[in-house]
Parts: sequence; C-alpha cells; structure tokens
Amino acid sequence: MSGEEGGLRLTLGEVYDTSRAILLEHGFAERHAAAISRTIRAAEGDECHHHGLFRLPFYVNALKAGQASPDAEPTLSRPAPGLVRIDAHFGFIPLALEQGAEPLAELAASQGIAALAVNNAHNVGPLWPEVERLAGRGLVAFAFTSATATVAPWGGTRPLFGTNPMAFGWPRPEGPPLVFDQASSASARGEIQIRLRDGRTLPEGWAIGPDGRPTSDPATALAGAQLPFGGPKGSSIALMIELLAGPLIGDVLSFEAGERDKAGTGAPCGGELVLALDPARLAPGGDRGAPLRHGEKLFERILAQEGTRLPSARRYAARARTAREGIAIPPGLRDTLRGLGAAL
Amino acid sequence: MSGEEGGLRLTLGEVYDTSRAILLEHGFAERHAAAISRTIRAAEGDECHHHGLFRLPFYVNALKAGQASPDAEPTLSRPAPGLVRIDAHFGFIPLALEQGAEPLAELAASQGIAALAVNNAHNVGPLWPEVERLAGRGLVAFAFTSATATVAPWGGTRPLFGTNPMAFGWPRPEGPPLVFDQASSASARGEIQIRLRDGRTLPEGWAIGPDGRPTSDPATALAGAQLPFGGPKGSSIALMIELLAGPLIGDVLSFEAGERDKAGTGAPCGGELVLALDPARLAPGGDRGAPLRHGEKLFERILAQEGTRLPSARRYAARARTAREGIAIPPGLRDTLRGLGAAL
Repeated sequence: MSGEEGGLRLTLGEVYDTSRAILLEHGFAERHAAAISRTIRAAEGDECHHHGLFRLPFYVNALKAGQASPDAEPTLSRPAPGLVRIDAHFGFIPLALEQGAEPLAELAASQGIAALAVNNAHNVGPLWPEVERLAGRGLVAFAFTSATATVAPWGGTRPLFGTNPMAFGWPRPEGPPLVFDQASSASARGEIQIRLRDGRTLPEGWAIGPDGRPTSDPATALAGAQLPFGGPKGSSIALMIELLAGPLIGDVLSFEAGERDKAGTGAPCGGELVLALDPARLAPGGDRGAPLRHGEKLFERILAQEGTRLPSARRYAARARTAREGIAIPPGLRDTLRGLGAAL
Repeated sequence: MSGEEGGLRLTLGEVYDTSRAILLEHGFAERHAAAISRTIRAAEGDECHHHGLFRLPFYVNALKAGQASPDAEPTLSRPAPGLVRIDAHFGFIPLALEQGAEPLAELAASQGIAALAVNNAHNVGPLWPEVERLAGRGLVAFAFTSATATVAPWGGTRPLFGTNPMAFGWPRPEGPPLVFDQASSASARGEIQIRLRDGRTLPEGWAIGPDGRPTSDPATALAGAQLPFGGPKGSSIALMIELLAGPLIGDVLSFEAGERDKAGTGAPCGGELVLALDPARLAPGGDRGAPLRHGEKLFERILAQEGTRLPSARRYAARARTAREGIAIPPGLRDTLRGLGAAL
C-alpha cells in the first residue's frame, strides 16, 4: 500500500485482503467473503473498476437490508442429463458459480453440450470470470444474466430490460482464452455511475431522461432509461437475455428483480444461465487441437488489419500491468472503503 | 397468377410451384427441390424477399458451377449424447435442417439441452425457419451461421466476417413463437443487392468502399466491406458466430467459404449450429406452461410502451397478408424467373 496524490495504490493481494476484511466485518461468512473477494480482485486486476472495490457498498447494503443471505450454502441438483441447477438461496453468486464450474465442465465433456442454471443469486459482478474459467478448461462457454430494469426496449421510453450482459469464451492453444462480456445496453450502468461520481458527461446514444429525450447528464440518465446498443438488434439481444436468465430457468425478469429490491440496494437477485460446449465432441476428430488451431487463423486475420484488436486484449494488457504495478485507488473510493471500516 | 403494373402477382402456392419447377428443370433432385421451395415460399410469405425467389439464380448457379450437389442425401450421426451431426455432403441446407429438427427436438427434451451441427451445406436462406420449427414444438432455439467474407471487423477496413446471422426462438402459449433472425452486419447483404437492383442508396453506417471510407452507393459497398451493427459489440457477435458455425463444428470460416466459392456464385458452403433448450427441463416444475406464461409478462410490458413491437411482429403481419393476397413480383424478378425457364 502506498500513497498517491491524495489517493493510494494497492497490490492485488491488498485488494483481496481489503475486500475480504470489509465483507467479514459486515457479516459475510468466510466462504462468501472469499469468493466475492476473488471476483473483486479479478475485476480490479483487469481494470473493470465498476465491478471491483466500487461495488463493496452494494454487497454490504444488500446484507444490511436483509435481502441477501450472508452465509447461504448453494445447493446443486441435476434436473436432466445435460443440466445442472444451483440454488444460491439468496446469497451472492460468486460462490455458486465456483461450485458449478466443475460439474458443468464434466457434463459438457460427456454430453457435448450442457447448461448450468443458477437461481436466487444476488449479482453485481462481471460475467467474464465464469466463461474464462470454462474456456480455460478447453470449453466454449456462454453466460447470460439480467438485472434491475434500467434499459428501454427499442422504440420505447421507459426502463424494462436490465443492462443484460452476455459473455462468450473461446479457448486458445496458447495463453488465456478469447473472452467478451458485453452489456446489451449501450453502456454498463456502472460506467454511468462512475461518470456521475467523476463529474463527466455521457456520449450520445447511451441514455434518455425521464422525459424520453436524449441526455448526456449521468444523473438524468440514471433517473431515465439507458438505451440498448445497436438499435433494434441490441434490443432483441436484451430481450433474449431477459428470457434466458429469467423465465427459461424459473427465475425473475429484470423488472421483477427491481420490484423485489425494496431497499433499493442496486444488488438485484435473480438467475444466470451458463452454457458450455466441448469442441472435442462437436468438431469431427475427437480432439480440441484442430478446432482451436483453426480459430487462431481467424484471430491472425483480424489482427492483420490495422486498427483492430481482439475483444479481451485490453483486459489482458491491464492484467499484466496491474500484476506488476497494482491499482490506484482514487480519493473518493478510499473514503468509501474507510467508511466501510477498511484500515487504509 | 395475375398481371400487375408490368409485374405480376402470385399466390404462395404458385411461388412454391414456380420455385420447384425451376429447380427440377435445372437438375435438383425432388427432395431438394421441395425442401428449398418450402424455404422460398416461407421467405416470400413473410416478405423476406431477399431470401425468396430472388435467390433462385444463386441455387441454380451453384449447381451449374459444379459446386453444389443436386441430390446428396444428408447423413446423420450422434457424436455425443447431447449432439446430432448432419453432413449435407455439399447439398443445400433446407433438407438437412428438416431432417435434423426431429432428432434435435427429441434430444433437447431428454437431455434438457442439445445441439445440431450441420456440415458441408450450401446456404442462402434465412435462419428463422429452423428456430420457428423448434419453438413451435415448445423449445427455445438458437441458430448461427456464417457466410462469404463481406464484413470488416470493428476498426478494420477489409472484409473478413460473413454477415453472420443469429436467430432465436421462444415458444408462446398462443399463436406463433417469438423469433428474431438478425445479421451481425448493419444490414443483410441481400438488402444491399436489392437496393442495387432498384437504384436506391444505402443508409449511413452500412458499408465502406474499397478505400475504407463510408459509402452510400450499393455497388461501391459490394466491392468494399459491410460494417458490423452496433460497433465493437456487433463485431464481437460476428466473431463469435464465425467460431460457432466454423471451427467449433469442424467447418469453414467465412473467408475460407469465400475462397472455396471459386465460381463466385454467392452461395457459400459451410456449417450451421443449432441449439435447443427445453423450458420444461430448465424451469423447476417440470412443465413448460409456467415459463412460457412468465415470458408473456415481458411481452405485455414491451407492448405497453408506445412505439415498440416484438421482433417477429412485422413478419407475422406479412404472413397473414400474403396468405390472403399473395405477393407482387416486380418486372425485373419476373424476367429473371422467365430466364430460368418459368412459364410466367
């Protein structure tokens, strides 16, 4: 830990320790505090700050409000040969996802394709850790989740969809997998919250105000509605994710998750669907070497065009940098963490 | 059949008969001619004209060039408990997809989730018929396919991805399913081809010319590159579909399909991945009534906002209209069909 222009700098180990200490202090059971802190460390390591330490108040507030369980043990069931279900019993999702990865990966390897449905889980983290974990085992993976209603459907003016991210992971023969994790809204909600905190405006196309008209003001946007990315096609993807992470697996729609968050903690509780496919079963030949080498040909051609990059490149560059240099904690965040009891 | 301002009007039965007669005349086996003509009739019925009769020269040219098989019988294999593979042996895909629907649906019902990989199939049709077919059986379905390289990756300037559509289908308790079928390019290629034919310009954001700069001219766009929809996020989806419909299932990437189309027929040969999930297995309770009724709550809320519509609404409205009124054949298309031997 070191001081820096009114803020300070933490190693990723210190990020983990700080997060875990705060969560334990506020009543989380050890297993949950550790799993959540691994997610926060991963997010800070990849410079996804809006899923990192910035989120600690959301975790704590959901507990204080009596909405999230501090210690629920996830329970696993197997409703069909290709399916695993984990009921998180209103705990936060990182522990459930860690527990589901192994059974899901085994099923995908034996069945060719398999799905994990996680129910009743509070979730304010990124999706990429679970698809990266599966892709790191040689599997192709998808994840879908919804959230509180904050995004207007295309053509409409009032929030109905969550920011509804989907993530996709593809294993690579060398190095970490190719992964993307993208909101089906024009921006992540956390990006608007961070611009509000930092006094910055929003780009065109991100949001409309409560009057249904375009706005560049973060506060007006948060009171109004975010917009889907890519017009009607992005709106269709948001709609699809509502159905996959909600009704399909017997969980809530975004607007229902929002109604259930009576305390307004911003830590919605709902479902997540994770799919895994095994290239060794799907591609003829019975091993995953050929399909993965084939994928590399595409990546080479993308990178041969000036101005392109692969979806996860920026995060992996950040990961290498933060492993050496740690991360900067701005003064506002330091004060928040101190307010939660951190000795910073 | 009736005359109309230099063109003419056909019933959907006549669309089918015309298509089938042309395909038989040019050497297609009966089973292929019938399956392709069912697809063409469905496309015209939903006013997806760029997948309808407009495509007949593509089918015929692929045969004339010796690239597509007129009579290959698709063969089915089962590489894993959750997977079905159909090798189309260089025939056109409609017959393979019709044959794969039943085995895929059965697997999804027993396993909870299943995948169909179709290999070595020529494909110039829409994707929605296969997801609609599965959703009509109560399943949630996805389809992904790639094509000839025509779309630049985000940040780049040269074609690499196909227009790479994905389709999604969700069953509804009453009436036809909710379905979308959307290119991951800003427009379908057929839409540009039809604007070229009709002498119309392109909207902003659809394409760049061979010089890498934006263009509104259809001919310049077809010589240059189409753009992904929704910027980097649409580009990520195009990339994902390349991997799913190609390397994952042991088939080609778009640029490879293009290289293989030596005669430049525009009827690429490659793979398609179809996924099916059974809500009756994924949602607790063991029946699909509850998840489907739950989905309706979302659709009601979407439609309660003025200015919105459900993704498939326009196609279904067209379907009702064309069933009564048939479709108009413009003079240029009539001449093309006559050139192929149709008695119109």
